[in-house]
Parts: sequence; structure tokens; C-alpha cells
Amino acid sequence: MNKVQICYSPALYPHYHADEQIVVVVDILRATSAMTTAIAHGAEHIVPVAKLFDADDFRSRGYLVAAERDGKIVEGYELGNSPYSFMGDAVKGKKIVLSTTNGTQAIEAAREAHELLIGAFINITAIAGYLKSKNKDVLILCAGWKNRFNLEDTLFAGALSELLLANDAYSSDDDAVRAAIILHSHAAGNYYDFLENSSHRKRLGKLDLKRDIDYCLSRDLVNTVPILKEDRIVDAKTLFQPA
Amino acid sequence: MNKVQICYSPALYPHYHADEQIVVVVDILRATSAMTTAIAHGAEHIVPVAKLFDADDFRSRGYLVAAERDGKIVEGYELGNSPYSFMGDAVKGKKIVLSTTNGTQAIEAAREAHELLIGAFINITAIAGYLKSKNKDVLILCAGWKNRFNLEDTLFAGALSELLLANDAYSSDDDAVRAAIILHSHAAGNYYDFLENSSHRKRLGKLDLKRDIDYCLSRDLVNTVPILKEDRIVDAKTLFQPA
Repeated sequence: MNKVQICYSPALYPHYHADEQIVVVVDILRATSAMTTAIAHGAEHIVPVAKLFDADDFRSRGYLVAAERDGKIVEGYELGNSPYSFMGDAVKGKKIVLSTTNGTQAIEAAREAHELLIGAFINITAIAGYLKSKNKDVLILCAGWKNRFNLEDTLFAGALSELLLANDAYSSDDDAVRAAIILHSHAAGNYYDFLENSSHRKRLGKLDLKRDIDYCLSRDLVNTVPILKEDRIVDAKTLFQPA
Repeated sequence: MNKVQICYSPALYPHYHADEQIVVVVDILRATSAMTTAIAHGAEHIVPVAKLFDADDFRSRGYLVAAERDGKIVEGYELGNSPYSFMGDAVKGKKIVLSTTNGTQAIEAAREAHELLIGAFINITAIAGYLKSKNKDVLILCAGWKNRFNLEDTLFAGALSELLLANDAYSSDDDAVRAAIILHSHAAGNYYDFLENSSHRKRLGKLDLKRDIDYCLSRDLVNTVPILKEDRIVDAKTLFQPA
């Protein structure tokens, strides 16, 4: 029987780390939604970086350079973390380097995981399918907001826990899983309204990002499973089916 | 307007620390319920210690020595953290030193707080009244289980948040508060049944501690507010009304 657990903050990851466990990192608004979009739209790979980095160095090596802090594009970088920046010809075949307020910190925290996947509502069913095929313990790592608990990542964690626990191969005795499932059921499928008063939706609302939020809260727009290999996020498919 | 926030793990406290904020530490099963019981029953003071300590040293200074790990009394110490051990003549006028798996770690984490109170269901209304009289920002610090999220402390945090937010002097934009209030409302007043599948209730259930759990989940059995002064937990009343 495989265990499902949820960690509500990157700062708590050391208390949840275990060998052989697959970690799903989620930062719904918007880092992991944007990363998943880029990989689904054919980006060659993404280098996630916790700290702000030398943009010129990466530019000279042919990278698209993206950095977001507090919901805004950082000055001196081309892109932030809006998923609409990571679609179509803008990213197809491209290499991307990205630093964000929370998502890339969570990836950094769990870099030593057995496998590390990038999850979002837009690929939740694909993630659940991949996990079931691997038959390992699962830890869902919420990026939160500056190491604090947030609701949107918790909703995703509850939704993914439900998908896994519907399968006989998974069980959980983790209070965080129970809480997330209750909160997800409370949202009753209407994530947007449920999150109306959440702290980060309000923060982004002030930046006029309703279109981004709508996109990030939509389920199963793509069928892609991004996975960390060495220091790069790539499409899990490419690991088994070389082009 | 005073803010209400919840921190779900002692390990996250540095991300919530603020000057002038009153911290309420809670470890419902059973450390803060036991400490509150001891102070309500007339213990002179309690020294909370994160690590196991030299029992003989404290004994020679007239202390009752108590230590619990994983729900059990540690060998070589007289008491664990059962609230029934801290009642009546056993504690009246006594000095107590106590180390527990989670509660005393949470106190250690927040030792530098402006004020640190010991909260439990058994004194929740007294705590809310004290806080309102102080008119400061409030952080509820859940001890959790070995730095992980747990449900029983979250229920308390939701209940106390509700009591405070019913008052115009308090507001919150913290997602953790919203989540705890939803979870508390989901329990619908029946904490015992709600926690039936919680990880720690099961852990204690195996140790046959149903009577302790019933007691710890009862509201307003006492009217005492324990507060940390220097390295000692005392009755807040004694700070203003010397005997």
C-alpha cells in the first residue's frame, strides 16, 4: 500500500522527506501552472532557479529568461510567471530559465527527492495517472506563500489526494490529507468563488490577472507530466520515447 | 484593527514572528491541556523544557518532574502529560518541570514572543477574553506532531479565531485562519467524532487514553490563562493580583 501525504510549506519539507517517495510540487498561482504550460507547448526544458540569476549569462546561452517576485515581472527579465507568456511559438523548442517567489523555492527544497514532478490543476489527471503507474509513496509539496500555508495549493493537494485514494493502491493517515480533502469538497468544484477571499487571489486580483487565475484553476487542459532531471524540468514522455 | 493568524508548525514560527504580537501555543492532546489543568489547580509554576532534562537536579529543588515522548511517560520521570495527573493536591502549590514531544518544542520556538499564552479547549473562552482585553495582533501556534500539521490543534485554532473575529476589533486575511474555521465548522461541535480518524487520536487510542481525550476536547472547564514569564508558566491573574 502506498502512502499519500501533504506538506504545506517548503520549510517543512525536511520533516516529510523519505527515500523512494515521489514529490509533486504545486504552486497553482502561477509557477507550476506556467511551467506545465511551457512544457506542454513544446519548451525543450526549464531550469528552475530559487534565487534571482544572471540574466545575461543565460541569454548568451540562448535561454528565455523569466523571473517573478510578488506577482510581477522582475526588471531586467523578459517574462514573469504568467502561463499566457509560455504558449505557442514563444516557447516551442526553447530553453527557459525561471525564478519565482515560491514555486522555485519549493523545487529547491525537494531537489533530492527520488522523483520530482510539477503539478497543477491543468495537468492533474495526467499527474495522477503517472503516479499510479509508478506505484510509490507520494508527497504533495505545497509552495505556499513565503513559506506560509495557502488555500489554492491546498485545494490542488486535496483534489490530487482524492484521485489517488480512489485507487486501492493508496492509503493515508496524514491529517493534512484529511484537511485538504475536506477543504476541496467545501469548494464544491467552484475553485474561483471559493478562493475569492484567499490572500493570493486578492494579491493577483489587484494586478488585474483574472484571466491567469481562470486558466490556473481549470482542470486537465493538457496531458503533460513535467519532471525534474538533474537541474532541468522536462516532459516525462521524452525520458522514455526519445524524439 | 488587530490581525489573527495561525501557524501550523513550530518549524514555521520564524515566518510568522512579529513584534507586539501575542502568541497562543496549543497542543490539545495533551501538553497545553495538562499545563492549563495544573495552573488551574493551583500549581505555583511550570518550567517547560524542550529537551529531556536532569530529573534529579529538579527533584532536589522540590520539583515534580514530568516527561512524555510519543504519548508515554519517559522512564525515570514521575509523570507524563495526562491532565488527570495534574489535578488537586498532587499539584496545588507545587513547582512542576515538564518536557513533551510537541508542546514544549512549540513554546521553545516562540519564547521571544511579546506575550506567550497556553491555550486549550478547556480554557478557550478565558483565552479569548484575555486577548480581547490586550487588544494586540494574535498568532495561534499549533504544536502539531513532530513539526507536521495535525487536526486537533487546527480545530482549536479555528474555534479561537471564530471567537476573536466575532469581535470588531479583529480581522484576518490569513488563508490558514480561513481553512481552520472551515474545518472547525465541519466538525460541527462534535470534536471527538471528527477526530476519530485523526492520526494522533488513533495513536493515543492505542494507549487507552479515551478519558484523557474526552477531557482535552471539552470546552471551558476552567477559567485560567497560563502565561510564560521568563522561563516559567504562571497564572496570568497572579501578575496583577499578588496573593
